[in-house]
Amino acid sequence: MSPDAEQRAAAPPFEPLGGESVYHGRFIEVRVERFRHADGEEVTREIVRHRGAVGIVAHDGQVLWLVRQPREAVGEFDLLEIPAGRLDVDGEQPLAAAQRELAEEIGRGARTWEPILDYYSSVGFSDERVHLFHATDLYEQHADSGENERIELVRWPLEKLQDAIASCRDAKTLIGLMWLARRLNG
Amino acid sequence: MSPDAEQRAAAPPFEPLGGESVYHGRFIEVRVERFRHADGEEVTREIVRHRGAVGIVAHDGQVLWLVRQPREAVGEFDLLEIPAGRLDVDGEQPLAAAQRELAEEIGRGARTWEPILDYYSSVGFSDERVHLFHATDLYEQHADSGENERIELVRWPLEKLQDAIASCRDAKTLIGLMWLARRLNG
Repeated sequence: MSPDAEQRAAAPPFEPLGGESVYHGRFIEVRVERFRHADGEEVTREIVRHRGAVGIVAHDGQVLWLVRQPREAVGEFDLLEIPAGRLDVDGEQPLAAAQRELAEEIGRGARTWEPILDYYSSVGFSDERVHLFHATDLYEQHADSGENERIELVRWPLEKLQDAIASCRDAKTLIGLMWLARRLNG
Repeated sequence: MSPDAEQRAAAPPFEPLGGESVYHGRFIEVRVERFRHADGEEVTREIVRHRGAVGIVAHDGQVLWLVRQPREAVGEFDLLEIPAGRLDVDGEQPLAAAQRELAEEIGRGARTWEPILDYYSSVGFSDERVHLFHATDLYEQHADSGENERIELVRWPLEKLQDAIASCRDAKTLIGLMWLARRLNG
């Protein structure tokens, strides 16, 4: 460990001073928090707390399983996305959530699950963390989310993966599909 | 245009019914909005409105310019990130914001700017859109943001780009650097 890395590990450069919840909703909580930096300066941050999410890059070697669904937050309804969902069940681990979402959204199970990576969606204002998985050896398996998510299945030819990347505007999908392109070429 | 695409273009499948602002802060507004879908069902969505952001993949062919800074929202301070910032100046276009941020964060201008792509950070709950740019032909140019952002410059060897991707956990940086790896290999 370099001296620089040691110092980092030893002394986080800011200390939480507390704050208040300004909105507590169904899926998000918004907090205004204060922090004191090592140099003494105090700063205020607006933070959207989110329980996290999973996204699944699922394919059978021929077909890449994508979805489209209404996304009211951005006024879009034809974004190409990988299957995904919130970590909204108490105590549910990311892999179990990914398995549940795959069955709910595209009616598939997978015999092989591989963690791809975890990332933060937008570190400036939200703590949302997304766990991406690679699901292969697919088989039919259905589950009901109990909610009408209006999901349209898109069976995308895996050989046209580059076209999917080129037309994609969704963070989790871009990251998952560019990862897959690297994997398939590597 | 396929009949499917025509129908999509012609009839967005949900109609905004209005809503209320539940938090109006400095950088975000949180709204609870209602929408009616084509099938008549009405749904409620919590939406974090954000003015958008820019991120810059900047290199001179040898050195890739990255940064680290305290990210209070996620409790991290050593995330590897591309230079980035909010679209927080009225009327400022994304390219102008990217040029301003590059000078503020890493003290560089660039003679060549290329738009990479735009993406949504987290379509389930936020309208934040991030505009990524590729900046090359760099030269020294400083600007003062008027704020202590505690930014540590990281001069990353471009030949070790794969290592940067492997250790990255930030969405804009993953997307920008995986795009760059494809560009350099293509």
